[in-house]
Amino acid sequence: MTQTPSATLAEFSATLSYEMIPAAVIARCEDFLLDTFGSMLAGYPARPVKSIRDFALAMGPAQGSAQIIGSTQTTSPLFAALINGAAAHMVEQDDVHNGSVFHPAAVVFPAALAVAQETGASGRDLLTACVAGYEVGIRVGEFLGRSHYRIFHTTGTAGTIAAAVAAGRLMGLSPAQMLYAIGSAGTQAAGLWEFLRTAADSKQLHTAKAAANGLTAAWLARDGFTGAKQILEGAQGMGAGMSSDADPARLTDRLGSRWALAETSFKYHASCRHTHPAADALAKVMQDHGLAAADISRVITHVHQGAIDVLGAVTRPETVHQSKFSMGTVLALIALRQRAGMPEFDAALNDQAVADFRDRVAMELDEEVDTAYPQRWIGKVSVVTLDGRTLQGRVDEPKGDPGNTLSREEIREKVRGLAQYGKSLSENQVQTGMHAIEEIGKLSRVGAIY
Amino acid sequence: MTQTPSATLAEFSATLSYEMIPAAVIARCEDFLLDTFGSMLAGYPARPVKSIRDFALAMGPAQGSAQIIGSTQTTSPLFAALINGAAAHMVEQDDVHNGSVFHPAAVVFPAALAVAQETGASGRDLLTACVAGYEVGIRVGEFLGRSHYRIFHTTGTAGTIAAAVAAGRLMGLSPAQMLYAIGSAGTQAAGLWEFLRTAADSKQLHTAKAAANGLTAAWLARDGFTGAKQILEGAQGMGAGMSSDADPARLTDRLGSRWALAETSFKYHASCRHTHPAADALAKVMQDHGLAAADISRVITHVHQGAIDVLGAVTRPETVHQSKFSMGTVLALIALRQRAGMPEFDAALNDQAVADFRDRVAMELDEEVDTAYPQRWIGKVSVVTLDGRTLQGRVDEPKGDPGNTLSREEIREKVRGLAQYGKSLSENQVQTGMHAIEEIGKLSRVGAIY
Repeated sequence: MTQTPSATLAEFSATLSYEMIPAAVIARCEDFLLDTFGSMLAGYPARPVKSIRDFALAMGPAQGSAQIIGSTQTTSPLFAALINGAAAHMVEQDDVHNGSVFHPAAVVFPAALAVAQETGASGRDLLTACVAGYEVGIRVGEFLGRSHYRIFHTTGTAGTIAAAVAAGRLMGLSPAQMLYAIGSAGTQAAGLWEFLRTAADSKQLHTAKAAANGLTAAWLARDGFTGAKQILEGAQGMGAGMSSDADPARLTDRLGSRWALAETSFKYHASCRHTHPAADALAKVMQDHGLAAADISRVITHVHQGAIDVLGAVTRPETVHQSKFSMGTVLALIALRQRAGMPEFDAALNDQAVADFRDRVAMELDEEVDTAYPQRWIGKVSVVTLDGRTLQGRVDEPKGDPGNTLSREEIREKVRGLAQYGKSLSENQVQTGMHAIEEIGKLSRVGAIY
Repeated sequence: MTQTPSATLAEFSATLSYEMIPAAVIARCEDFLLDTFGSMLAGYPARPVKSIRDFALAMGPAQGSAQIIGSTQTTSPLFAALINGAAAHMVEQDDVHNGSVFHPAAVVFPAALAVAQETGASGRDLLTACVAGYEVGIRVGEFLGRSHYRIFHTTGTAGTIAAAVAAGRLMGLSPAQMLYAIGSAGTQAAGLWEFLRTAADSKQLHTAKAAANGLTAAWLARDGFTGAKQILEGAQGMGAGMSSDADPARLTDRLGSRWALAETSFKYHASCRHTHPAADALAKVMQDHGLAAADISRVITHVHQGAIDVLGAVTRPETVHQSKFSMGTVLALIALRQRAGMPEFDAALNDQAVADFRDRVAMELDEEVDTAYPQRWIGKVSVVTLDGRTLQGRVDEPKGDPGNTLSREEIREKVRGLAQYGKSLSENQVQTGMHAIEEIGKLSRVGAIY
């Protein structure tokens, strides 16, 4: 009997071993964990994350086996996953997989770290579980497709499955139990883009709940709690209910030979990934032609439909978080400040120069860019100068993509900058935490990170 | 400026007062609470509920301000809502609103009781909050429509909003905060029917999580955590993503004058509500013609499409829970045992006589029944006897519907039977608990129920 796609994913993730994973994929997984540590430290003090933390402290135990990253506090694994999941995505600096438009780190690492600390797993087990989470979650995102992403926040939905798989691998679930975990995760999967229209805090809730719900699903499965066996591809499953172009073949695409984790991109700018290709293309045309912001009268960004769907509703950002979804704001920062990092966004909200430049930026659907998307995120801009020239800028791989990646030292620098922004741990704690992550493959037992 | 439907619902539920609610609606709400107490007691010891309880005990505090119904144990409100939500729906005896195909009690009471015990609310406040939860949740279910119910378990999805509204009312949320609570609830809303195909435990997870997630949404909103302002009717909201026939006009249909709570039906048989009309019609034709099970060669149930969607996949039930979704099993119990209660289902799974009768039952789509549905659940059966007659049976209102309701004494008897089935509380505790609920309108402070 041929296995269903869901069963194939369950078996793959329950039986994946460290030895089966290429060394370069393991190294990249460590890179992403290090990168995510920075995102968690930067997100820790933010108001929405604090709300979720206060909720967790009211509802959960006063201490537990899992660490709240950014502090020396502990709680139960459920709430650690919840809080760290909220923090990881807060500043929009966590990694993204282009083809699935999915942020794996924000949901996989919070769930996996919490369970690893609870079970006393080794660093290698942690990394193996995280690779499983990336591989499965990315394929679920690809399966759900573009129609899903138009309305659903894939990181919330596919992310619940990814978190369940990573948590389940660390709990040593059998393939049958893993299938139940995937079933219980999929039937909890949620997250709608509607929140972005009024700059609401839901993005933090989505990653928090994906991590926590995935962990819940795995925990219940270990206890014999059963879930749907075809929650992904079944006639009343996620694909049927939440997508109109779901393609089950994507679920198992070259499983075990294609490493989707290695296709994942770092974020260089502190904004929605949909703004990055245009930001890099603008930087390039300004550099190539020696332009200053004041030389520019208009920028047309030639984008894919997904960018218009997500960013189109944001015309006048009302919060710093929303400004990261404003193509005009991001390009204004590139033009005016040559950087779109955390401090630049904080300073931009009430900056008239930024607002003026923002209103000179427009998005237009581009057939070439749209066809290449989501496999490739091409950046194309037309810049009209005050002296009447129209200049074209183009990048084929935005900074952070696998072909234009960050070096380990660039990641370290990014983490230090994010940690400084968050101010939740001392410089020494940050340094020790970074070291612990860089050495994690040698740890026989994953401990607290600070 | 005209209010959006979501804002209208938020304002209604934040400002609803006890005095605005007709006495008959309050009395019916007490009936439903009493009825649900029985369902929780019967569901308490079941394996899936125990899994969720063990998870809660591992992740939550050792004690707290809210009661785990069916025990004298306490936990934090989040986990009380989670556990009691799982228990309330376990035995398929909790109430149902026909038009929305939604089980309000299983999600509203667990969330509301947990918050009322935490905040020290009065019984009248509790009842007011629960009425708000019913009114809003039912309208959300009606809004999401039939296309939603084909794939999504409305009690999980609309239920999250209902629980948020009830919890939010008890927390004294302002209309603006309530709108955020609805937004955060809607973006967590989940639950797929896929689980039923393999008799998985997800139904318990759906009600547990709807109650707990709704409470979470309200708690966060009180703390200033924002949510989408049009999560229901917005272009990237629940209607857009999870329905193809969503009708925003249903959201505010006669809000404050039509009391949807009073349209809600009690469950008389311990099975999926979709089986009840046919069960009552079969009982009637057997009684009218003096038939015994052995006289019957075939039963054709003339049903609505929703019954086929939900029950059609269940041909040979593998678990007691799945057998409650088997039209054949339910009709076999009516024919053979004259009852389809908890003990009858437990005894039926391996009963050859039940299996034999089950295979004589078929479902056929009926235009009249389907057109009347979901406003009216008409029961129609054709019974072919061994001696060659074809007899028609019909009921226009199955037992438990508002026009054919249960008396308070019938509810008491049902609760006692359910409590006896669950065996979690002593007879004396059950009696005291029932009394506390029947007097709840006089309590200045809602306490534990046993």
